[in-house]
Amino acid sequence: MSSYDKDNVFAKILRGELPCHKVYEDEHTIAIMDLMPRTDGHTLVMPKAASRNLLDIDLEQLGHVMATVQKIAHAQLKAFNADGITVQQFNEGAGGQVIFHTHVHVLPRHEGIKMRPPGGEMADQNELASHAAKLVAVLENA
Amino acid sequence: MSSYDKDNVFAKILRGELPCHKVYEDEHTIAIMDLMPRTDGHTLVMPKAASRNLLDIDLEQLGHVMATVQKIAHAQLKAFNADGITVQQFNEGAGGQVIFHTHVHVLPRHEGIKMRPPGGEMADQNELASHAAKLVAVLENA
Repeated sequence: MSSYDKDNVFAKILRGELPCHKVYEDEHTIAIMDLMPRTDGHTLVMPKAASRNLLDIDLEQLGHVMATVQKIAHAQLKAFNADGITVQQFNEGAGGQVIFHTHVHVLPRHEGIKMRPPGGEMADQNELASHAAKLVAVLENA
Repeated sequence: MSSYDKDNVFAKILRGELPCHKVYEDEHTIAIMDLMPRTDGHTLVMPKAASRNLLDIDLEQLGHVMATVQKIAHAQLKAFNADGITVQQFNEGAGGQVIFHTHVHVLPRHEGIKMRPPGGEMADQNELASHAAKLVAVLENA
């Protein structure tokens, strides 16, 4: 496994060097909208601390990440009137990982509707902003 | 969301009422081979305590589960000479959940090889036993 590259896209987002649609932030984690959402509301949860993926993250950081994953999952159920939640987490290229800062995919699901294929089109920025706003509204009233 | 059904298949496995190919057990979790593996070595990690999924599990139990997920991921890399690890966790039917006791799918991946579709054929029991033995051998020497 390679080491952590501090110039990966999520590290840049965490440093404020790249924009994102942020829906949640606490001391240890942030949650942002995936730019190529496989379902509407597809959110990424990541630790602020540097780690490449599940293989090198320490358990305390992983605990913070999973607490936020649970929070986002509940918010997605409400914000998108979802029937279920799919969680995915990819490690190394062969495992599906594209950006090498630990992150967890959290996807609202609806009965009978498949996920779109991975690596699809960039979503419309206004649409992402509107989905983020729905989540933020629920999270702020939680 | 429905409540916990104490007669789900994993509850029966945890009570010893159904067989499984167990690869790991500690105070709070067990890891067993998936009977319809989407890659060779596909393992399920679950808490011993009752919870339906990510939406109702308490964070302490979730922490135990994720610690075991990380342990299994490392063991899979060695046991199957894997290039990466895919983690999936499904919540409610719409989210992909079939058995309603919290569990996390941990799958060894190899460069260029896709996962088999979900809900495929039952694996050969001898093959599952052989994959379990590989994981156990690595875990016992960890």
